[in-house]
Amino acid sequence: MQSFTLPTWVNSWLETTGRDLIASAPGDQGYMKMVIALAKENFMQGAEGEQGGPFAAAVIHKPTGEILSLGINRVVPLHTSTAHAEMVALARAQQTLGQFSLRQENHLDEDDRPYTLYTSAQMCAMCLGAVCWSGVGEVVYGARAEDTEKLTGFDEGPIHPHWKEELEKRGIKVTGPVLAQEANAVLKAYKDQSHIIYAG
Amino acid sequence: MQSFTLPTWVNSWLETTGRDLIASAPGDQGYMKMVIALAKENFMQGAEGEQGGPFAAAVIHKPTGEILSLGINRVVPLHTSTAHAEMVALARAQQTLGQFSLRQENHLDEDDRPYTLYTSAQMCAMCLGAVCWSGVGEVVYGARAEDTEKLTGFDEGPIHPHWKEELEKRGIKVTGPVLAQEANAVLKAYKDQSHIIYAG
Repeated sequence: MQSFTLPTWVNSWLETTGRDLIASAPGDQGYMKMVIALAKENFMQGAEGEQGGPFAAAVIHKPTGEILSLGINRVVPLHTSTAHAEMVALARAQQTLGQFSLRQENHLDEDDRPYTLYTSAQMCAMCLGAVCWSGVGEVVYGARAEDTEKLTGFDEGPIHPHWKEELEKRGIKVTGPVLAQEANAVLKAYKDQSHIIYAG
Repeated sequence: MQSFTLPTWVNSWLETTGRDLIASAPGDQGYMKMVIALAKENFMQGAEGEQGGPFAAAVIHKPTGEILSLGINRVVPLHTSTAHAEMVALARAQQTLGQFSLRQENHLDEDDRPYTLYTSAQMCAMCLGAVCWSGVGEVVYGARAEDTEKLTGFDEGPIHPHWKEELEKRGIKVTGPVLAQEANAVLKAYKDQSHIIYAG
C-alpha cells in the first residue's frame, strides 16, 4: 500500500507529456524540465481543493534513467502538511522497492546509491532532513529556497545554514540550481493566480 | 483515509496502560510518561519486521487534555524512512481533523494553536521542519538529540544550530528535556537488544 496517493491524471500526463520533456534535453536538464512542468500541472489540473502546491519531484535510477517514482505536493487534498513533493516521491519509491532505504545494501557494484531525487525547488527544512534518511545518492534541484520564499510567500523553515556540506558529508551529492528561471516562473504563476499558501 | 497506519495493539495498549500513565503524573510529565512507555512497546510488541524504532509521539489538545492522535516509529514495517513517530502523529492528527494545519484558523478564542506535540525524543532534522508546517503551538520532548545519537547510533541529521529559537520565532513553544533519564533508558534498552539502526 502506498501511504501517499497520486491523482489519476499524473500517469497519463507522464505518458503524453512528461516522457517527451525528459527526452527533450540531455541528462539532468530533461528530468528537471519534467518535474518543473509537473509542478505547474499540479495546480492547474483537478477541481478546487484537489489541487496541490507548485512543487514536484521524481526519484530516478541514474544508471538506467528509469523513473522509480513521481511526487507532487499533496498538502491540501490529503490534509497532511508533510505531503510535500519530495516526501511523496521518496515514500512511494521506498514502498515500491519494499525497503525503507533506497540504498542498495547488498549490491556488489561500487555505487550503492544509484537513485537521484529531482525536485523542482530546493528542499525545505523538513525535506532536507528527509533526504538524509532516504538513501538517495544525489539531489538535483531547480528553484533556490530564497526564491521560493520571495516568489510564493511560503516559509521554508529552519534550513541548516550549511545544508549542502551537511548532505555531502553524508555521501549525498548536491546539484543545483538547474533551470532556476523556468522553475521560478512556475512559482510566480502560482502566486499570480492567488493559490492557497498553506503555512503552518 | 490515514496515510500512516498503526498496528492493532496500540489502541488496546492505550486503554489498558497508556491512560493510566497519563493520569499518574501531573501535566506534561503524565503525557511524557505515556509516550516514553509507548516508545518501548514499539520495539517489544509485534513480530520481527513489524517492530518499529524506539520512538513515540502524541498530539494533545492542551485545553481539554484529549488525545487527538498517537504516533510510533513505523520506518521498518511500512518501508518508509519518513515514518518517524512525530510525522505519523502529525499526519494522523491532521487527517482526523480533515485539515492540513492544526491551527484553528477561524477560532474566536485567543489561542489559535491549542495542540501540543509530545515526543519521546527531540525531533531529528526532518521532524523539526515538519513541526513548523504542522500548526502545533508547542513541542514537549524527552531525550535530547545528542543523547539519542550517543545511545542508539542514529544520525539525527542537519538540525539547525539554533533550532529552539527558530521554532519560537514561528510561534511554537519548546519545552524539554522532560523525563530525559526515563527516555534515555528506553533508547539504551533498544540498543542493548541490537535492534536495527535504519540509517539512510
